[in-house]
Amino acid sequence: MERIPQRKPMTFQEKLQEYAKLIVNIGVNVQEGQDIVLRCPVECYEFGRMIVEEGYKAGAKEVIVHWGDEQVSRLTYDYADLSVFETVQEWQAESRNKYAREGACFITISGGDPEIFKGVDSAKLKAYAKACDKAFEEFYNRMMASEIPWNVVAVPNKKWAMKVFPELSEEEAVEKLWEAVFFAVRIGESDVVEAWRKHNQSLAEQCKKLNELQFEKLHYKNSLGTDFIVGLVENHIWEGGAEEDSKGVTFVANMPTEEVFTMPDCRVADGKVVSSLPLSFEGTLIKNFSLTFKNGRVEEFTAEEGYEALERLLNSDEGSRHLGEVALVPYKSPISQMNILFYNTLFDENASCHFAFGECYPTTVKGGTKMTAEEITKVGGNHSMNHVDFMVGTSDLCITGITKEGKEIPIFENGNWVL
Amino acid sequence: MERIPQRKPMTFQEKLQEYAKLIVNIGVNVQEGQDIVLRCPVECYEFGRMIVEEGYKAGAKEVIVHWGDEQVSRLTYDYADLSVFETVQEWQAESRNKYAREGACFITISGGDPEIFKGVDSAKLKAYAKACDKAFEEFYNRMMASEIPWNVVAVPNKKWAMKVFPELSEEEAVEKLWEAVFFAVRIGESDVVEAWRKHNQSLAEQCKKLNELQFEKLHYKNSLGTDFIVGLVENHIWEGGAEEDSKGVTFVANMPTEEVFTMPDCRVADGKVVSSLPLSFEGTLIKNFSLTFKNGRVEEFTAEEGYEALERLLNSDEGSRHLGEVALVPYKSPISQMNILFYNTLFDENASCHFAFGECYPTTVKGGTKMTAEEITKVGGNHSMNHVDFMVGTSDLCITGITKEGKEIPIFENGNWVL
Repeated sequence: MERIPQRKPMTFQEKLQEYAKLIVNIGVNVQEGQDIVLRCPVECYEFGRMIVEEGYKAGAKEVIVHWGDEQVSRLTYDYADLSVFETVQEWQAESRNKYAREGACFITISGGDPEIFKGVDSAKLKAYAKACDKAFEEFYNRMMASEIPWNVVAVPNKKWAMKVFPELSEEEAVEKLWEAVFFAVRIGESDVVEAWRKHNQSLAEQCKKLNELQFEKLHYKNSLGTDFIVGLVENHIWEGGAEEDSKGVTFVANMPTEEVFTMPDCRVADGKVVSSLPLSFEGTLIKNFSLTFKNGRVEEFTAEEGYEALERLLNSDEGSRHLGEVALVPYKSPISQMNILFYNTLFDENASCHFAFGECYPTTVKGGTKMTAEEITKVGGNHSMNHVDFMVGTSDLCITGITKEGKEIPIFENGNWVL
Repeated sequence: MERIPQRKPMTFQEKLQEYAKLIVNIGVNVQEGQDIVLRCPVECYEFGRMIVEEGYKAGAKEVIVHWGDEQVSRLTYDYADLSVFETVQEWQAESRNKYAREGACFITISGGDPEIFKGVDSAKLKAYAKACDKAFEEFYNRMMASEIPWNVVAVPNKKWAMKVFPELSEEEAVEKLWEAVFFAVRIGESDVVEAWRKHNQSLAEQCKKLNELQFEKLHYKNSLGTDFIVGLVENHIWEGGAEEDSKGVTFVANMPTEEVFTMPDCRVADGKVVSSLPLSFEGTLIKNFSLTFKNGRVEEFTAEEGYEALERLLNSDEGSRHLGEVALVPYKSPISQMNILFYNTLFDENASCHFAFGECYPTTVKGGTKMTAEEITKVGGNHSMNHVDFMVGTSDLCITGITKEGKEIPIFENGNWVL
């Protein structure tokens, strides 16, 4: 379904304010007396303050801000010894785990320099990713299971804006990127809350159809060379738009979000997938890559650029060689229509059909949030320290659903829904 | 001793860089393999990054940045319930205590809005001060005993600059305040390291003379109405400029620093002291106040402005009614010569002779850093959750030292050293 935006004139400050409200009230949907943990880059401290104030206005008990700075992280990678990255301090782990345990909601502001970690010693990156995975396990588990409300949004910074619009001045680029962000999250429409309600409803309807059909496999084909079959786990659930936390509170984990997604059977994937957009991993761009799967596993891969980064990603652990997410996005989605390469997964994944290497979402199989890790494995769910999306959608992509009975039903034709 | 600055032309960026180097190398004097904990307001993140880089260049193992924002604190005071301020979370306490325990050095960037907490519910401020006092006890104790190197410096922000120079535009005010800060910390002199070496030496010589004389009491008198006798503890030590941490590493805790200071006997203080500069406490300015002491205790007080804040300060605990520090600063000190009211203790205390209510420095009595709290009390040292400086120096201040034998020796005449 396409939306016809009704624009009303708003100043930049008004849009910022509306964005902050949207994040707090629709994004995590904070409840009276609940804590909010906000992760915010220091560079956008003014917007961080807005979220804090909107959080309190919406009834938060306390808004705890974890400020961060990717430039400081980069300096640390450049100067500190490997040993520094092998441990996450207990106090740091608790600074998130404690609040996850107590049912806080989590807002994360992304949107830094897409190439901030380019050239960093990969042993350090890998060690730190591993240390975080262990230290924040409680937080990650509760988040991936949607036990607590969480939300990731983006705020442009200069480096990111210049990457997206290299032909503009820094100031113009930041301004243009803000406008793109506002458009993508429906700021500026006459009633942003109503716009999100309708949008969530439309995504929910698509999920309902797919959930009833319970396809066993999906067959992807396009002129780039993709010819690929992926299995879905039994009793998989297609999700999209709003979710519910363990208390039944509705939240939207990503803004923007245009996708419906489910859990692949990580043991069933065969054929070749060709990327349709670059993938940014640990600050390195991987361009024009292809993956050849056999029995669910990437057995061969190529990349015109960033081959080593792709290799590092796939070798992180066994689960990084398998899929954890299958997501459908029409080629004519609003973000796709902007025709901007954002170099940021939050946006680019919503412009294109995609898969993710690595960890699956337990919410996307029936009863999954109550399953142990072993039970998830047993039904075909994937485990990994990574969860990295990569794009495969093109204007000529065809996706056919194959039912248990072997019946073939077209889902996508020429990049868009036909179901 | 007066310095004759030799200026060399430096750009603003060069001065910033030199300031960052000064803080790391002379301020905390970080040693190879030592951690640095940097507390930095988000508003000056660019300067924070400079310190991080200089820290690594100087050999730091890791530079841990605790970003903070006083505007977020203010929002929390305004919206959150009292209960939120009654506890400091364990992870927050450990985020400082752990590093103090392990011998890190601590850099704190001050310099926010002097009135940021004006009008905040004093019960919340008091509860939080108490909770911090308990949670960070290990950190504070190690810091106050100079076991670990620490350093407090200031970075101008807009609100502070406008408070100091209300007649200027925001941009001009910030620029002028930066120049004042640079001048105060000797940035722009031909060799800032050499300038600090000489300065520390001159303060050390004054301390040596005073330490040899071992005055029993000091008698203060000026035309504002001050007529006041304060006792010094036996075996007191006058300190000033550089100190040594428990490993013998030289550091400078405050930049600027123009004072020499020692430990008063908190049981011996009689007469009236009249303030010569306003005192900022919890964001409220206390102006033109006087204190009448009897047997070491403030028994009466007046204030033309901010009486309630003064009352709150004095009623924080019993120790807040007694003195913890006696400090001497010549009226013709460079900061005094600038003739700027900074509304910031770091600067204003170095423009004027002062005392502090509250906690004493164990380093200022012989063997003090090895004494228990009870032993400190026994020799006459003061304990309190507060340590708040207030200024008493004027152009006509006379201070006379009284030896054990009752001999009177002039220390200050007309506001300056005569010893």
